[in-house]
Amino acid sequence: MPIPTIEWADGKIRLIDQTLLPNEFKQIYCDDLETVWEAIKSLRVRGAPAIGIAAALGTVLGIWKSQADSYTAFADELAKVTDYLGTSRPTAVNLFWALDRMTKTAESHQHVPISQLKQVLLNEALVIIEEDRAMCRAIGKHGLQLLSEGDTILTHCNAGGLATSDYGTALAVMFTAHEAGKNISVYADETRPLLQGSRLTAWELMQAGIEVTLICDNMAAQVMKEGKIQCAVVGADRIAANGDAANKIGTYNVAILAQAHEIPFYVAAPTSTLDFSTETGDQIPIEERSPEEVTEGFGTRTAPEGVKVYSPAFDVTPAHLITAIITEKGIARPPYTLSLKGLVG
Amino acid sequence: MPIPTIEWADGKIRLIDQTLLPNEFKQIYCDDLETVWEAIKSLRVRGAPAIGIAAALGTVLGIWKSQADSYTAFADELAKVTDYLGTSRPTAVNLFWALDRMTKTAESHQHVPISQLKQVLLNEALVIIEEDRAMCRAIGKHGLQLLSEGDTILTHCNAGGLATSDYGTALAVMFTAHEAGKNISVYADETRPLLQGSRLTAWELMQAGIEVTLICDNMAAQVMKEGKIQCAVVGADRIAANGDAANKIGTYNVAILAQAHEIPFYVAAPTSTLDFSTETGDQIPIEERSPEEVTEGFGTRTAPEGVKVYSPAFDVTPAHLITAIITEKGIARPPYTLSLKGLVG
Repeated sequence: MPIPTIEWADGKIRLIDQTLLPNEFKQIYCDDLETVWEAIKSLRVRGAPAIGIAAALGTVLGIWKSQADSYTAFADELAKVTDYLGTSRPTAVNLFWALDRMTKTAESHQHVPISQLKQVLLNEALVIIEEDRAMCRAIGKHGLQLLSEGDTILTHCNAGGLATSDYGTALAVMFTAHEAGKNISVYADETRPLLQGSRLTAWELMQAGIEVTLICDNMAAQVMKEGKIQCAVVGADRIAANGDAANKIGTYNVAILAQAHEIPFYVAAPTSTLDFSTETGDQIPIEERSPEEVTEGFGTRTAPEGVKVYSPAFDVTPAHLITAIITEKGIARPPYTLSLKGLVG
Repeated sequence: MPIPTIEWADGKIRLIDQTLLPNEFKQIYCDDLETVWEAIKSLRVRGAPAIGIAAALGTVLGIWKSQADSYTAFADELAKVTDYLGTSRPTAVNLFWALDRMTKTAESHQHVPISQLKQVLLNEALVIIEEDRAMCRAIGKHGLQLLSEGDTILTHCNAGGLATSDYGTALAVMFTAHEAGKNISVYADETRPLLQGSRLTAWELMQAGIEVTLICDNMAAQVMKEGKIQCAVVGADRIAANGDAANKIGTYNVAILAQAHEIPFYVAAPTSTLDFSTETGDQIPIEERSPEEVTEGFGTRTAPEGVKVYSPAFDVTPAHLITAIITEKGIARPPYTLSLKGLVG
């Protein structure tokens, strides 16, 4: 059972400060709005689902001491709180999704007394956490069917518990298999430029007692050639209607290697990442990241001054390289245009 | 015309201190044996051909002030010098090859006066440099035929001038094309764990005025998918009789990606790396490197304490993924078992 990434504890938010990992494990407490804002801004809490949870719990903290004596006055305070939290990471879609959900919950309960309304909002935040936890567990349960005793799994980046409230998505499959007593082990790509694989994935798996071996991204082909890998499991940020999956840069590389070595390649992601309005992956824009992440990645300049850098943040793995997509509602197999729609009914 | 990596200048050895690159370009002078020894030991000079040259020139420095009045006395001094230089990097094959060649040159000239024998040894060292330079230039000239106007080339690690006296092997193809007025550009894999691609290859190409873009190793697939690459050119440390080629870890990864995107994959290496006693790449042992290169790259700990690491130094690209092998004696094409033997007669 992993340590919760973020939770409500005695009127405060308790979260793992991810900026200190893997060198230091420290849980911090947020008991006011400003501390939550700073934790989101400074990436102490990161990953779409976890940011949503931080925003929902932060909203609760922001209105908890409200003295408002009318819904109108309360709604004004609530709007100030959500507007403020929205400035912490203005590009995080899940942040606004959660703030919007909290606002709508208040609106639909505007006739209950303020003291009770606060409790309704806390409950809603806890429901968001519970939904996230249930989603992770369901992905894990479905993914479990794809693993055999003794399997070694390759993963890329961090689709783990630290990005969610609990088990994560790709890592949920491994946590669930381990908990079910399957003797599995994992190779984790370090995942340049930001090394989420070495900093976060390796740490999470070690915490859970799962055997993990860290490799540089360019070593995955050799590891597969040596027969060490039985399948690859990765997360996804967005999945098009035809099954093309956008994920951290390097995922497409792993998918090609898996096919070349006849190794199944699985994507694990909640159905909330399915985007049926996007027909194929070609329509997904690839954002570029800052050159310094590549040239000064370890606090030291490791490339010539003025060198040109290309650093796409994501890539798109075409559906034909994906053996199956594991969601909380079940497993989709090709052709995905049919199977994904079938899952969400 | 690149700046010589290592050369003989007015009775001293002048070399580029590669430990300072890419942040500082500095040429240092060695005017005694100890300084050469330290330069080899501390990797100020690196790469098989360049180490051989350092050893040959170091031998000259070591005996230059000899007062010996007989060949026997001189040979004793020479043996002390070569034994000492041999301790600087005891696993470097080219170091011993060069020291042996210098010793044999002395033996075959034992009847000339000592003062003249010193000059013979200096000439031999200069011949080694000239042979290396001619090899690089010939590889470049042959490789040039494989490039077209406007091509963009992907390379991995550093098979450049800094590893040789001059143009390098894989990079020789690019230097030659640029000098011939072909408008080429290059994508350089950074090459984890030691980042020879960002530290050295990017620097060399920028020095030569060739447009270079740095990427992380896991971005190569995306760059190929975007249609940005017309061919890949890499070096090799050892090539088996059937054409299987051992090179820096990650090369095999690039070869699979090139095949998946129908991009030609070329290996550029001198015929001295052909090892006909090794039938296939399966017989080439893969040395492992220290975990700290992965977990503490560049002075910062980026992985949990105690994490297991697998860090193969090399991989072997199977011959069926190699479009052609470019040597100083010409270009070999499949089937390599025939064509490689044909090249060396």
